[in-house]
Amino acid sequence: MEEEEEAKMNNQQEKSQKKNAILVDGVILNGPVADSKSGEKFVEEVNKIIMEEVVKKASDATEKVCEWQSPEQLRTLLDLELKDTGESHPKLLQLCQDVIQFSVKTYHPRFFNQLYAGIDYYSLAARFITEALNPSVYTYEISPVFLLVEEAVLKKMIEYIGWEGGDGIFNPGGSVSNMYAMNLARYKYFPDIKEKGLSGIPQLVLFTSEECHYSVKKAASFLGIGTQNVYFVKSDDRGKMIPEELEKQVQHARNEGSAPFFVSATAGTTVLGAFDPLNEIADICEKHNLWLHVDASWGGSALLSRRHRKLLHGIHRATSVAWNPHKMLMAGIQCCALLVKDSSGLLKRCYSANASYLFQQDKFYDISYDTGDKSIQCSRRADAFKFWMTWKALGTTGLEKRVNRALALVRYLVDEIKKREGFQLLLEPEYANICFWYIPPSLRKMEKGHEFWEKLSCVAPIIKERMMKKGSMMLGYQPHRGKVNFFRQVIISPQVIREDMDFLLDEIDSLGQDL
Amino acid sequence: MEEEEEAKMNNQQEKSQKKNAILVDGVILNGPVADSKSGEKFVEEVNKIIMEEVVKKASDATEKVCEWQSPEQLRTLLDLELKDTGESHPKLLQLCQDVIQFSVKTYHPRFFNQLYAGIDYYSLAARFITEALNPSVYTYEISPVFLLVEEAVLKKMIEYIGWEGGDGIFNPGGSVSNMYAMNLARYKYFPDIKEKGLSGIPQLVLFTSEECHYSVKKAASFLGIGTQNVYFVKSDDRGKMIPEELEKQVQHARNEGSAPFFVSATAGTTVLGAFDPLNEIADICEKHNLWLHVDASWGGSALLSRRHRKLLHGIHRATSVAWNPHKMLMAGIQCCALLVKDSSGLLKRCYSANASYLFQQDKFYDISYDTGDKSIQCSRRADAFKFWMTWKALGTTGLEKRVNRALALVRYLVDEIKKREGFQLLLEPEYANICFWYIPPSLRKMEKGHEFWEKLSCVAPIIKERMMKKGSMMLGYQPHRGKVNFFRQVIISPQVIREDMDFLLDEIDSLGQDL
Repeated sequence: MEEEEEAKMNNQQEKSQKKNAILVDGVILNGPVADSKSGEKFVEEVNKIIMEEVVKKASDATEKVCEWQSPEQLRTLLDLELKDTGESHPKLLQLCQDVIQFSVKTYHPRFFNQLYAGIDYYSLAARFITEALNPSVYTYEISPVFLLVEEAVLKKMIEYIGWEGGDGIFNPGGSVSNMYAMNLARYKYFPDIKEKGLSGIPQLVLFTSEECHYSVKKAASFLGIGTQNVYFVKSDDRGKMIPEELEKQVQHARNEGSAPFFVSATAGTTVLGAFDPLNEIADICEKHNLWLHVDASWGGSALLSRRHRKLLHGIHRATSVAWNPHKMLMAGIQCCALLVKDSSGLLKRCYSANASYLFQQDKFYDISYDTGDKSIQCSRRADAFKFWMTWKALGTTGLEKRVNRALALVRYLVDEIKKREGFQLLLEPEYANICFWYIPPSLRKMEKGHEFWEKLSCVAPIIKERMMKKGSMMLGYQPHRGKVNFFRQVIISPQVIREDMDFLLDEIDSLGQDL
Repeated sequence: MEEEEEAKMNNQQEKSQKKNAILVDGVILNGPVADSKSGEKFVEEVNKIIMEEVVKKASDATEKVCEWQSPEQLRTLLDLELKDTGESHPKLLQLCQDVIQFSVKTYHPRFFNQLYAGIDYYSLAARFITEALNPSVYTYEISPVFLLVEEAVLKKMIEYIGWEGGDGIFNPGGSVSNMYAMNLARYKYFPDIKEKGLSGIPQLVLFTSEECHYSVKKAASFLGIGTQNVYFVKSDDRGKMIPEELEKQVQHARNEGSAPFFVSATAGTTVLGAFDPLNEIADICEKHNLWLHVDASWGGSALLSRRHRKLLHGIHRATSVAWNPHKMLMAGIQCCALLVKDSSGLLKRCYSANASYLFQQDKFYDISYDTGDKSIQCSRRADAFKFWMTWKALGTTGLEKRVNRALALVRYLVDEIKKREGFQLLLEPEYANICFWYIPPSLRKMEKGHEFWEKLSCVAPIIKERMMKKGSMMLGYQPHRGKVNFFRQVIISPQVIREDMDFLLDEIDSLGQDL
């Protein structure tokens, strides 16, 4: 009896103690947590800044695209250093303002610099939701909604490729999607690779065009194949892979005793916007039993346009496709799918590691929804969701209109370039890349010899510098395959209007008059 | 004169035409764009929902952690299908509500299921900013602020590792960081690999503990090394790699004629939270000229705590370190750095592809800031920024307090587990993973033979199912190295209070009483 009473008393004592502060290692562990209200307030304040300084300015061409500062200057303007003590909310809000002020406005109607641009309100709202929920898409248990959404989006993308079924996964970038495909292909032909690695396997070689994205080389290097085992196939004047040259290279490799296994065709090259002839390439791949990957990271979005999907004629014959809705379809960096025709579970067999702490086999639901083991990542973002939201909001017809509108603006700009003195197209664009030279007055009458090209090569960099320092617009330039520096104008955003096209040419002309 | 006047007239005519609708391919190209106002409104509405349904509920333990639905049910509850026509704003707002409702609340104080949890208001605000600005971090031209921020954060992380200098890059996940390190190591010893691939190189082998993260195997497979060339070193009862066993394995591999090149030690293993003895492992790596990578994805954050950084004693001797601030430091999925001791540019030499359209050599600023070519990715998210914002807000001392508080809560929970009948620790935790069995009343008097363990193995899955269907909390379980299913409780979030610890044990006891 005594013992029992003592136990009871101890118990009561313990309970009353618990109501007081519990101190362990000098830390008070009792609730409630003090700073949630001020944290919420801070998020609200930042949201206001974002609405005013970013979202509401996205259609305002009178704002600056960028407020150029050299790295050295910017370092003195921003308080970058991380210190022992924290900063006050007013100071942090000022920092947020500064970060926005000195960042490039990729949502600006006159940002034409990359293969993405503009703002999509639906995708943006979806991204705010996923940031707040902070999911990781590996198991249904943790990400029920986002796994089902990914499934729905992949299914629809597969439908637009024209396959009857398939599989896929969203990845952090088209470069990573290309790697996945390359690794998947070699696994299919040599399943032992997963355990044994490349030793004992004949020298793998792969093929892509001279105009391919640089990630194909990076992938070959990363996967242990080596860049010299990437065979670059000649492309024609428009930047399209020449199928006969591909077949020659495949034969050549076979004669050398190498093992051709993979062709990466490009649907929408990075610089010229060229589309490889997929149907002819597919014939060769079938004949030689090669995996046909199509890097449609940039061009894939044309599949949604009945008018323009012919650019990708034959894509249904691909074994895998990389397609980034964050480019033309504005899903936000990053939103990149690798899609594979196989529906036998090749992706899972190739990538699974069956981690028992994550992919338990005795779960109470259908674990085929735990698709995270298809990935080389462990935690993975819910990238499909933002695209799903835009698709939901606009419908396929709305997405189609965006593609059509961008390519109609291209037609307009091309016609203007042809009309204007001092502008010269490199080639007639098929897609949203418009490559052209601006020839300043001083060079217009010069013979197109060595001196002309040398002088012309300095023009684009200077105009680029001037437009950035002025903040009026941004577009890219590069030398390319023997052609000296030319501008590459990319049109994507639905915020772009015809007036922006006129402005672009006027502005180049005005910035380059004295050159 | 006549010609001039005609030109003038044409010009005027053209200008006035331009004011009218310009129609190309059936698309009106003139501005202004119609839907920006309603788009802005939509973003504002969604922001309100996020504040009410997510942010303001993050400290409210009375809300459900999840609202469980089976995949089949959830599919009928959500309108997932993508259609030809878009949906109205009210419908979309309802969808946003549904998505939030049926998603797991990883910010909830009783979400203990993964190696991340909780909400950080500063990181969240920063993530909203980057989503709105939508940058891609490859060149200074496009991401001036975010490149400088990444530099500042890497520098500070390197300081806490204890190196005098170094290099680094943020990646989409610790798995990817581990891959980077492995590839970098082989490139250092065999620089020809980049061009020539693995052929002609002796069989590479690498070492890691039995308790390592599964990504080490995935990396070996992806990089063409093969999983059978990963040698798993025995670990002790606490899950720490045994240095003598490592040395034996290295010798064994050398005797076999293989080429040992890489050791991946783990600082904070995934299941047990164990820390390998880095100093002793570093001795062996130095002796045998091996690259020492430390996968501190989970444990790295202890470096910020003066009390707990001894867990990583010797980390300054590592050649590379993976460290994910998105775990214990709550930077949001994903925020993962690979840090390397080398400051001679190895990272750049290993990964660069010098794409001329992106990394032009004739830019008007110091192109050493164009660090994107260090990455296997092309477009890359500004992941450093969210961590920078939290660090700015809290200071190092604030981050330290978080780590200390989480580990103090661990001490509290461990003491409670020891006091309570029916709970049994697997081992004394060093870090934030608390592994324990719940032994229901029916098993408490049973002899610990085969039948006992078999019955016990079914307990955790049933309790997990019950907690999820009730929505009261979430924690993980798994079998592990001969031990039947046990719970793994992970404590991270500063929103967690002592009362949540008590609740956790009470709840398990109540859910498992009848088992």
